[in-house]
Amino acid sequence: MNRIFALSLTLSILASMIFADEGMWTFDNPPLKQWKERYNFEPSKEWLDRLRLASPKLPGASGAFVSPNGLIATNHHVASSIIAKLSTKERDLMKTGFYARSRADELKAQDAEVSVLVSYENVTDRVHNAAKAGTTDADSAAKRSAEIAVIEKDCTATTGMKCDVVSLYSGGEYWLYRNKRFTDIRLVMCPEEQAAFFGGDYDNFVYPRFDLDFTFLRVYENGLPAKTPNYFKWSAAGAQDGEFIIAPGYPGSTARLLTVAQLTYQRDLGNPAQKKIWETLRKGLETYSKQGPEQLRQAFPGMRSFANSLKRLDGQQDGLLNPRQFARKEAEEKDLRDKLAAKPDLNKLYGSAWTNIAKACEGMEAMSNRLSFSVLAVSRLGTIASQIVTYHIEKAKPNEKRYPEYTDARLEALKRSITSPAPVYPEMEEAQLIAWFDEARKTLGNSDPFIKAAFGEANTAGVIRKAIRETKLTDPAARQALLDGPATSVETSTDPLIALARRTEPIVRELRAWNEKNIKDVEAANGTKIAEARFAVYGKSMPPDANGNLRISYGVVKGYEEDTTLIPYKTTFFGLYDRALSFGEVPPFDLAPSIEARRDKVDLSTPLNFVYSADTIGGNSGTPIVNREGELVGLNFDSNNQKLSNRYWYIEESEGSRAVGVHSAGILEALRKIYNAPELVNELLGTKPAL
Amino acid sequence: MNRIFALSLTLSILASMIFADEGMWTFDNPPLKQWKERYNFEPSKEWLDRLRLASPKLPGASGAFVSPNGLIATNHHVASSIIAKLSTKERDLMKTGFYARSRADELKAQDAEVSVLVSYENVTDRVHNAAKAGTTDADSAAKRSAEIAVIEKDCTATTGMKCDVVSLYSGGEYWLYRNKRFTDIRLVMCPEEQAAFFGGDYDNFVYPRFDLDFTFLRVYENGLPAKTPNYFKWSAAGAQDGEFIIAPGYPGSTARLLTVAQLTYQRDLGNPAQKKIWETLRKGLETYSKQGPEQLRQAFPGMRSFANSLKRLDGQQDGLLNPRQFARKEAEEKDLRDKLAAKPDLNKLYGSAWTNIAKACEGMEAMSNRLSFSVLAVSRLGTIASQIVTYHIEKAKPNEKRYPEYTDARLEALKRSITSPAPVYPEMEEAQLIAWFDEARKTLGNSDPFIKAAFGEANTAGVIRKAIRETKLTDPAARQALLDGPATSVETSTDPLIALARRTEPIVRELRAWNEKNIKDVEAANGTKIAEARFAVYGKSMPPDANGNLRISYGVVKGYEEDTTLIPYKTTFFGLYDRALSFGEVPPFDLAPSIEARRDKVDLSTPLNFVYSADTIGGNSGTPIVNREGELVGLNFDSNNQKLSNRYWYIEESEGSRAVGVHSAGILEALRKIYNAPELVNELLGTKPAL
Repeated sequence: MNRIFALSLTLSILASMIFADEGMWTFDNPPLKQWKERYNFEPSKEWLDRLRLASPKLPGASGAFVSPNGLIATNHHVASSIIAKLSTKERDLMKTGFYARSRADELKAQDAEVSVLVSYENVTDRVHNAAKAGTTDADSAAKRSAEIAVIEKDCTATTGMKCDVVSLYSGGEYWLYRNKRFTDIRLVMCPEEQAAFFGGDYDNFVYPRFDLDFTFLRVYENGLPAKTPNYFKWSAAGAQDGEFIIAPGYPGSTARLLTVAQLTYQRDLGNPAQKKIWETLRKGLETYSKQGPEQLRQAFPGMRSFANSLKRLDGQQDGLLNPRQFARKEAEEKDLRDKLAAKPDLNKLYGSAWTNIAKACEGMEAMSNRLSFSVLAVSRLGTIASQIVTYHIEKAKPNEKRYPEYTDARLEALKRSITSPAPVYPEMEEAQLIAWFDEARKTLGNSDPFIKAAFGEANTAGVIRKAIRETKLTDPAARQALLDGPATSVETSTDPLIALARRTEPIVRELRAWNEKNIKDVEAANGTKIAEARFAVYGKSMPPDANGNLRISYGVVKGYEEDTTLIPYKTTFFGLYDRALSFGEVPPFDLAPSIEARRDKVDLSTPLNFVYSADTIGGNSGTPIVNREGELVGLNFDSNNQKLSNRYWYIEESEGSRAVGVHSAGILEALRKIYNAPELVNELLGTKPAL
Repeated sequence: MNRIFALSLTLSILASMIFADEGMWTFDNPPLKQWKERYNFEPSKEWLDRLRLASPKLPGASGAFVSPNGLIATNHHVASSIIAKLSTKERDLMKTGFYARSRADELKAQDAEVSVLVSYENVTDRVHNAAKAGTTDADSAAKRSAEIAVIEKDCTATTGMKCDVVSLYSGGEYWLYRNKRFTDIRLVMCPEEQAAFFGGDYDNFVYPRFDLDFTFLRVYENGLPAKTPNYFKWSAAGAQDGEFIIAPGYPGSTARLLTVAQLTYQRDLGNPAQKKIWETLRKGLETYSKQGPEQLRQAFPGMRSFANSLKRLDGQQDGLLNPRQFARKEAEEKDLRDKLAAKPDLNKLYGSAWTNIAKACEGMEAMSNRLSFSVLAVSRLGTIASQIVTYHIEKAKPNEKRYPEYTDARLEALKRSITSPAPVYPEMEEAQLIAWFDEARKTLGNSDPFIKAAFGEANTAGVIRKAIRETKLTDPAARQALLDGPATSVETSTDPLIALARRTEPIVRELRAWNEKNIKDVEAANGTKIAEARFAVYGKSMPPDANGNLRISYGVVKGYEEDTTLIPYKTTFFGLYDRALSFGEVPPFDLAPSIEARRDKVDLSTPLNFVYSADTIGGNSGTPIVNREGELVGLNFDSNNQKLSNRYWYIEESEGSRAVGVHSAGILEALRKIYNAPELVNELLGTKPAL
């Protein structure tokens, strides 16, 4: 009895407390108190503004301005879609790496976007008031979306910026983020992928680690390098043991404010379904990649990405399956609900929210397979076809009635992505789509509406093969024409891939409507209530869940214990050569050619990778790791295994949870000794005027 | 139901099978079938004889002859008691390392013994027949001991060799082992302890590993290097990935044939009691070591040894606490008992053995503390005093009635050990004994017979301090005089340490008698029955438990999987520098001075440590790792964490269980580039005639 009492007491204390270095904080609410109390760090408003303006968002990830002339440092694996699209069978930059010795040599990316958060404004009242006028959850959701569309459109019209209304705390707050957008992005320097991804999928989420996972890009405006007066000074010494660091980046998604019912759904249905989807897609690429080296080159970025997602998902699922960790979540929820129960006025407002969400979760079970597999947008051409068909349907509606991703504020970026000249590999598309639809048919059965709409009585491979072989969508001009033309040209198109998208669109739309009405809107309405309840009980003491927007994390550079031994805070180039030679340089533990060649040139004692306790997650790849002086001491690129379940809850640093970065001194040493890039080194160190 | 059925089926199959590389085999029954079938390896009798004769036993461990002139390679941690005893405050060989450039410089060890198994003979029938004449377990045991004493004494008288009757298969077999003994052992070369023990207790039982854990000794006869025509050729290339290897050494103790009741006792009482004993002894040394650097030097070998034992014990206990592994043991026992139950004649003979042992185990609980703590022989002087007192009591009896360790065949070695001139540190003795008796008194209470006999009404520290400060036993000549003198000189001695030993001796003797009568004899009698039952059901398909005698293990040089990544089969010197520098060279991750100094001289890609699947355990330290050609490719020095519970059962190599060795190429590189020992290299490679 005593033990049980002690345990529940501990959990109850845990429920309302924030751990030492917990949190991906918004810039409107930085953890100033924690910084001051724990690290004696009190940044000025100017310091924080500079931090924000020097931390651009990259596609799905993060980066750092590192010179006044638009130079960006990020991870190789963040830039790899840019690098892969610039590669051909004859000039494979993924394999060879790249260095532009002069501005003229910098390679323009075919489609990429970088943005900077210039300003933000709290629009919670406007959005909430609009939603309150609704009579049902669905009606409220429609009114909320409409209001958001208006705010975004007005903002874009007034400022010319990329404007996003961002939902925080499960809808507890809404903020308008105004972003400066760059669309002319050029590749300056990247190492060989083997240098960046040494150890491959085996060493992904593993530490000690030895990866030169960095790349340099540059943003241009009007054909000239953009002026970026807010940038990070490059630290030649780099991260030091025990040092306090800040990590401003774009964490993709956490789920820490979900209810126990939602987490239970994730554990028992959502994650297994997601796993099946990714495994199916990876298998399609893998099979294709085995046809030859060129096929492998085409498929590799996708395979790597799915392998990464699957390994991360396994780690997250391990967390959900860990009863000790899950119990903390249950205790947190119980604590909030108990405190609420003690205040009848609040309880009346919010008390039913958990039950409502739990009921919605129950409804998912029957629909899970249909929602998972009724999708055409699983390959590049499949996505383009779907988007073109949906584009005309949505564009015909008033702005505020459209799907959010088709509102005026977002159309420009969407069209740019659809018409990107990046290469398409039709044979790979065929392989991907056939593998996908084979699995979909197996899962859903022949009588499923989506399968029937897609194939009727015909066989999967035949339909897909014809669609890919005869479609004109491989040509960006053809896509442009369909976007620019009237809706009827899509409605009457005989392009077999457009036809496939057209046939399946109503099913996809119907399922999306079901999902919004029965799940999303319920989760939004009741999530907002829970957020308000949490504010009422605890105040705004916790940061909101991550959702791909700018956040500040922080922590300490620090090794950890593992089993019975210690793991050091950094690794060195010595260790890279050790790991490669210990495996006899068998891939993926082979050395990139430049690294192999320059073994005797490199100062082997230079730090290479390092770990720290900052609270980060997927999307933080490329995040600058910054010291008190605002200098860049490293680039975040991974987390270790112990940290993976931090999607659902913060894992304390005492459990060995760590983020992994490339050390700024290691990058400098590589640029100097391995990649012979003195011009870039000079620009980073500001030792010579920019060219 | 199906799952449970499948599980029990699997376990039942497991119960009667031997795993791929399982077993510490006796030379009379080497696993020729497995070698031939799995590795296409068919050694000749001569090959095996040479293997045996080139594999000497060192104190508590193993070694290898590596030249025809008595040169032995073993681990530094095996030789460290020799090295520590040759060290003084002024000349600390543990800290500086040592190299004798010529024979004349080789340092004679103060007390050490090396032996070689020259021949062996099955004496099972003689011993069993003697025991069968007994009317009770205790009577049988006495008759068995008497017969063994006769066999050993006759053998020594006839051959002049060290003769041991060795019990195998819990008494299922008895073998007479005839050993050639060397007592003049000299130190040829050792690295700094920091090179051998890099990473300290943290990295003990951890891999990847970076330890130069080797030392070279030489055996002398009549003042000249002994001729050792059977020796291992040193492989300059060393162990290769995937290579089949054989490991002939002296594994100390396994407990794989114990019954479930015995294992349960180990898990619930035996191991926790052992842990408390070692922790008490370690704590005493630790407290003393904090007084200053000289005290640390004196205490360090003991502290290291206890730390090693405790870490190993924790790993073994983890195994016992692992229900999946324990279930296999239960299934094995069930399988044998079920098969026995199906054969009434056998069942009648053997069926009650398990219950008898289980009953004996139950009796241990009440006696566990008294047996653990009623001991004076826990420090060097405490051991010497106890042995001198017991020596005279035992010597007065006929040979075959004595404790086995006081029989004529063993007296010479015992007296040599008692009179060793190795240094004694009285202040450390005081600290050790006071810590020990404080804990003993706390555990047993003031009214316990042992405590009363030791201290009466006096206080612990006072009695111990007087005993150590006034004893003459610090002088080897005084010990010699007491051994050589009549029993009365001990019985009437006023030496306070002898008096303490004399007062406590009857209690120790009484407890030993209780333990033998109620536990050991029951275990022996019934263990023999179980062994016979096992032979009857399975044949002699399994090797016996290890007990410090020569065995052959074998396996493959091979990396393994850990979590989501791969661990390579070897490490390199690159990795040693990486690990040191990654920790900023903070102890115990600092580099030994020679290693620090020669960084630029060493070929960093040289293999340093490596792993393989051979079935080894404590005592196998220093075991030669030998390839098909009979060349030495490495020296065994450790196991990884995954392997620790192999005391109780074989852990499959697929679970990542590995032995860890120093690579022969790494030792050569260190001798050449770090320790500048060309003479030794030439002797190892046979490239120059011996001096």
